Order: sequence, then structure tokens, then C-alpha cells
Amino acid sequence: MRVLGIDPGTYNMGVGVVDAHGSDLSLVHVSVLAPRRADPLPARLHAMSRGLGDLLRDLTPGSAAIEEPFVARNVRAAMAVAQAQAAAMIACAAHGLEVTGYTPRQVKQAVTDYGGSSKEQVQAMVRALLEIDHIPGPADAADALAVAICHVNAGRALELDLRE
Amino acid sequence: MRVLGIDPGTYNMGVGVVDAHGSDLSLVHVSVLAPRRADPLPARLHAMSRGLGDLLRDLTPGSAAIEEPFVARNVRAAMAVAQAQAAAMIACAAHGLEVTGYTPRQVKQAVTDYGGSSKEQVQAMVRALLEIDHIPGPADAADALAVAICHVNAGRALELDLRE
Repeated sequence: MRVLGIDPGTYNMGVGVVDAHGSDLSLVHVSVLAPRRADPLPARLHAMSRGLGDLLRDLTPGSAAIEEPFVARNVRAAMAVAQAQAAAMIACAAHGLEVTGYTPRQVKQAVTDYGGSSKEQVQAMVRALLEIDHIPGPADAADALAVAICHVNAGRALELDLRE
Repeated sequence: MRVLGIDPGTYNMGVGVVDAHGSDLSLVHVSVLAPRRADPLPARLHAMSRGLGDLLRDLTPGSAAIEEPFVARNVRAAMAVAQAQAAAMIACAAHGLEVTGYTPRQVKQAVTDYGGSSKEQVQAMVRALLEIDHIPGPADAADALAVAICHVNAGRALELDLRE
């Protein structure tokens, strides 16, 4: 099972793809889509949506997960993340890919077994699970991998439920 | 000058297109893009973005304006509108069309000369300015025309400023 994880931000979109064979996870791709900050918002959203679409064509994940924007105290910030999330969802829908949303807490819980983990603890666990020494790129990229791993685990949990 | 106005909503996107020749305005198109409510959010956003893209291809406006989501007390509602706005902006950017944002108050001010106008007053003024007896479709459609007219007036005001 190849799973796409997306971490949408105001100016960046973290994208991570992992393959899951049973309980084995391996890193397929990790990157950050970062349009030029000076570009107008519509151009940046379009660039992120198109960039993600290109990755979907190349990597053909079978499933996608996205981090839900937390409802921030700063409404403007939450709306900006919602717009980046929309750009990602449009690219996924254009490729017939369903998207599941997870809260930051759900992602942390799934990856580290504790919803209150620090960013560093999540990154350490992502490295351990993927058996890599170093996650390339900035922190958004690691977060996207955590979202993908969360989705793999949620699917596995669902399978276990169905078997019971 | 052919101007596109967009009124993004949670489930609907109002789209209005007007032609402006000097101070003469005429109605070119008005509709509401309304994906099936039962569809998942990514599919709905994609449908709105693609539907707007089709209209842009057919109607080739030279300029676009969008109503900014007000920062609602209900953050979830504001985020939903922000996502629809993103879908519209992505379609415009894909067609090389710049998008200008206006607050609801700016739209009312531009159309009726009073920022506190009621929905009915805005609609009456839109009908008068376009010299039509009836605005087809639901209220979102009329709002989209008001956004387009606001953008025409803003452009005219800018021209006047430049001439002074």
C-alpha cells in the first residue's frame, strides 16, 4: 500500500509518500512544495495544487491523508491553512484519490502513541519507523511523512477491527 | 471590459460576469456552481474549480474579483468559505487571471454607496445597474454580480485617480 501524507501550510506544502508492506514501512518520497512567497495567493495555491498533481501522476499513491488545520486562535492563519488544504484536496480529487483528514493530535498519537508529543519526538519516531538516519528537507516534510504513517496505522487498526 | 465576480460559499459558488462599456453595464452570465452536497469535500472543491475553469474558457473575462470571507465568529464556517475561495483562485490562476478580493462591506459600498445595505437593497441596485427586471437563480448569483460590479467601479475609480 502506497500512502500520501500532506502537511498544508500558509506558504509551504509538505508532501510525504511511504510504502507499507505489512508492518514494514519504507520512504518513497519526501519534499516541500514552496511557491515563491512574493507571488499572489492564487498563483501560490495553483502552484501547490499543480505541483502535488505532478507528484500524484509520478508516484501514484493509492490513498491520501492530510493534516487538518487546527482551529487556531488566529482565524486568518487557520483560513490560510484551509486554503492550502483546499489546493491539496483539489489535486487529489482530480486524480480520483480519496483524502482522509487527521488532527495534529491524531497524527502524534498514531506515530508516537502519545497525542502530546513534541515535534522532535515525532520526527525521531518517523526516522525509526522508516529506518532512516535523516529526514531530508525542512520540518514540514517530516510532518507530511508522519501524516502518511498515521494513515497507514489507521488503516491497519481498521483492518484489525474488521477481523475481530 | 469583461469582469468576473465570484461569491464563494460552503456548498455553492456564485459566478457573475458583466461587460462594462464606459458607465454602461450589461449582464453576460450568472450562475451558481453547486456540487452535490453528499459528495466529499475534495470532490466538491474540485467540481467548483473545474466548473469555474470551464466558464473562464467559454467567457474569457479579462479581470476577476472575489468576495473575501468575513472573519466569522464561527471559525469552521470561515475556513469552509476560505476553501471555496481557494478553489476559485486556483481556477483563475490556471487561466492567468488576476483576482482582487473585496470585503462584503466594500461590495455593498461600491454597489449601493452604503456599506451597511441589506441584501435586498444590493439586489435592487444590481438589477437597476444591469437594467434587468429579474436576476436569474438564487441569491448567491446576485451577490456574484455585485462583486463584479464592485470591481468595475473600483477600476473606474482608479482610472479617475490616475487622470487627476
